[in-house]
Amino acid sequence: MQIGEAVPEEIATRARESFARQGLMAHLGAEITEVRAGLVTLRLPFRPELTQQHGYFHAGGTSAIADSAGGYAGFTLFPEGSSVLTVEFKLNLLSPAQGAFLEATGRVIRHGRTLTICQLDVWGVEGARRRNVATGLQSLICLHDRPDSPAAG
Amino acid sequence: MQIGEAVPEEIATRARESFARQGLMAHLGAEITEVRAGLVTLRLPFRPELTQQHGYFHAGGTSAIADSAGGYAGFTLFPEGSSVLTVEFKLNLLSPAQGAFLEATGRVIRHGRTLTICQLDVWGVEGARRRNVATGLQSLICLHDRPDSPAAG
Amino acid sequence: MQIGEAVPEEIATRARESFARQGLMAHLGAEITEVRAGLVTLRLPFRPELTQQHGYFHAGGTSAIADSAGGYAGFTLFPEGSSVLTVEFKLNLLSPAQGAFLEATGRVIRHGRTLTICQLDVWGVEGARRRNVATGLQSLICLHDRPDSPAAG
Amino acid sequence: MQIGEAVPEEIATRARESFARQGLMAHLGAEITEVRAGLVTLRLPFRPELTQQHGYFHAGGTSAIADSAGGYAGFTLFPEGSSVLTVEFKLNLLSPAQGAFLEATGRVIRHGRTLTICQLDVWGVEGARRRNVATGLQSLICLHDRPDSPAAG
Repeated sequence: MQIGEAVPEEIATRARESFARQGLMAHLGAEITEVRAGLVTLRLPFRPELTQQHGYFHAGGTSAIADSAGGYAGFTLFPEGSSVLTVEFKLNLLSPAQGAFLEATGRVIRHGRTLTICQLDVWGVEGARRRNVATGLQSLICLHDRPDSPAAG
Repeated sequence: MQIGEAVPEEIATRARESFARQGLMAHLGAEITEVRAGLVTLRLPFRPELTQQHGYFHAGGTSAIADSAGGYAGFTLFPEGSSVLTVEFKLNLLSPAQGAFLEATGRVIRHGRTLTICQLDVWGVEGARRRNVATGLQSLICLHDRPDSPAAG
Repeated sequence: MQIGEAVPEEIATRARESFARQGLMAHLGAEITEVRAGLVTLRLPFRPELTQQHGYFHAGGTSAIADSAGGYAGFTLFPEGSSVLTVEFKLNLLSPAQGAFLEATGRVIRHGRTLTICQLDVWGVEGARRRNVATGLQSLICLHDRPDSPAAG
Repeated sequence: MQIGEAVPEEIATRARESFARQGLMAHLGAEITEVRAGLVTLRLPFRPELTQQHGYFHAGGTSAIADSAGGYAGFTLFPEGSSVLTVEFKLNLLSPAQGAFLEATGRVIRHGRTLTICQLDVWGVEGARRRNVATGLQSLICLHDRPDSPAAG
C-alpha cells in the first residue's frame, strides 16, 4: 500500500473500533475523521474543558490527538492480530493552539516489521484559517502477539 | 534558590492559581500535590475516561500532566509578571501506564533568562508499587512581558 | 522571504564563512552545497573515518551535518549582527546510513524573533538511489547581541 | 545485573572491540574510559578540529560521543551474537560545550528484549570544573540475529 491511499473497509473498521475504545478520546471529544493507509486524521473541537491557563488548547490535548493519530496511522499497516504501542514521541509547539477545532494528522514515514515512525502535525482551524500549531515525530512498536481486541484489553 | 527547596507562599499560590485555570487539568481530574523551587508534582487518579484501547492510561493523559508539571516547575523560578509556554517536549513511554494513579514530576535541570529545561517523569502507583512509566525532556520559554493572570488569558 | 527562495549574496556569504569556521565540518569533510532562505544543504562524502562498527556512517556524523544544516538554515533568516545556537534536536534514524555521500537538509518550519524551528533530513545517496536515512526536528535560538564573527569566537 | 555494577571481562572486551571499529571515534579522538553494566563513559579531548563557529565543541561531536556511550551502555546488556542500532535520540544542549575534554555517559534506564532506553549526559570538564553541557534520551534496538563482528560489518 502507498501512504495515503484508500484502505480496505475492514482495516478502517478495525482502526475506528479501537479508537472508540479509547476512553480519553471520548472524554476530550475527539473524533476520527479520516483513515487511509498510514495516514489518520482526528478532530478535536474547542471546549473550555481543554484549555491551559491562557485559554488556548492545553498541550496535553494537542499531544493526545497527535499520539492517537500517529498510532492509528501505523496500525492501518500492521498485520491482523497485532496491536500498537507508542515507544516515544516529541512535539514542537509552534504557535498557541487556537481555533474552533484542532486537526491532528499522523503519517507514516517509515514502516518496518517491528518499528514504525510517524510524522505528527496538528493544525488550529478557524473558518478558512488553518495554522500548524504543532509538529512532531513518533516511534511505534508493533506487538505481533497481542490482538487489539476488547477481550485483550 | 536551590531546586527542590521550599518556595515563598506567594510563589506556590501563583502556581496553584494558574494550575486551577487549566480547564484540561480539572477535566482529567489532575491535582497539584507539591510545589517546590523548580520542582512540581501532579497526581492523576485512574478513571475509565483516561484510557487508551487496552485499558491503560492513554499517553495523552500522561503527557498532559508531565507537561503541566514541567511548566509549573519552571514557572516557580520565573519573575513576577511573566508567563510560561512549552516550546517542545519529548517523552519515552517506558512501560504501560497502570495504577491507581499516575504521579508526574517536573524538575528544572537548567534555568536561564529566556529558556528553562526540565526533566519530566511519570510514575504509575499502585499501593506500595511505584513504576517509572514515562521519562522526558521539555524546553520552556519565559514570556517576560505577559502576565499569567486571568485577565491576560 | 519565502522559505527556499534565493537569498542576497551577502547572506549566503555570511553563512558560508561561518560554516568555514566550523573546524568539525572540515575535519569530517563536509561541504555546504546550497544556501537558500531558511534552507541549507550540506554534503558529506563517505570515508572510513566516518563509520560506526558495521561500516555505515556513524550517527554522530549524520547528526553533525543535520545540526549544521539546520543551524545555517535558521541563520539565513536572522538579522545582521546576531548568531545562532542549537537549543535541542531530535533525530530518528530511519535506515542504515549508507552511500557514496550523505546529504543533509535543514528547512525552517517556524521562524520567530527568539526561536526558530527546523525540520532536518538526511539522505544516503548512491548513484541515482536516494534514501531518507534520518529525519528530525531542531530548535534554534537567535542571539541578538552576539555577532557570529571570528573576533567574537 | 544492576546498572552500574562491574561486568565480566568478556563483555567489557566485546564493547571495547566494537568501539575500536568505529572509525568516527578514532577520527574525533574519543576514548572509552569506563564500561559497566548498562553504563558506559567516553572522553573526547578538545581539538580545533572539533569546533563550531564560535570555537566551542560542535554539537555534532557532543552527539557522536553521547550516541556511542548510550549504544555501548545498552550493548553491555545484550545477549551474545546480537548487535545494537540507535532508533532515535534527542539532546538538549544546556550550555556551550567547553573544556579540556568532554565526557559522555550513557546509562540504561529501561532494558527490554527488543528496545532499550538510555539517558545521555555530556559534561565539559576543565580542571576541577565539570558542567553538564547536554542531556538527552536515546532508544536502542537489539538486533538478535546480527552479530556485531568485523565480518558482519
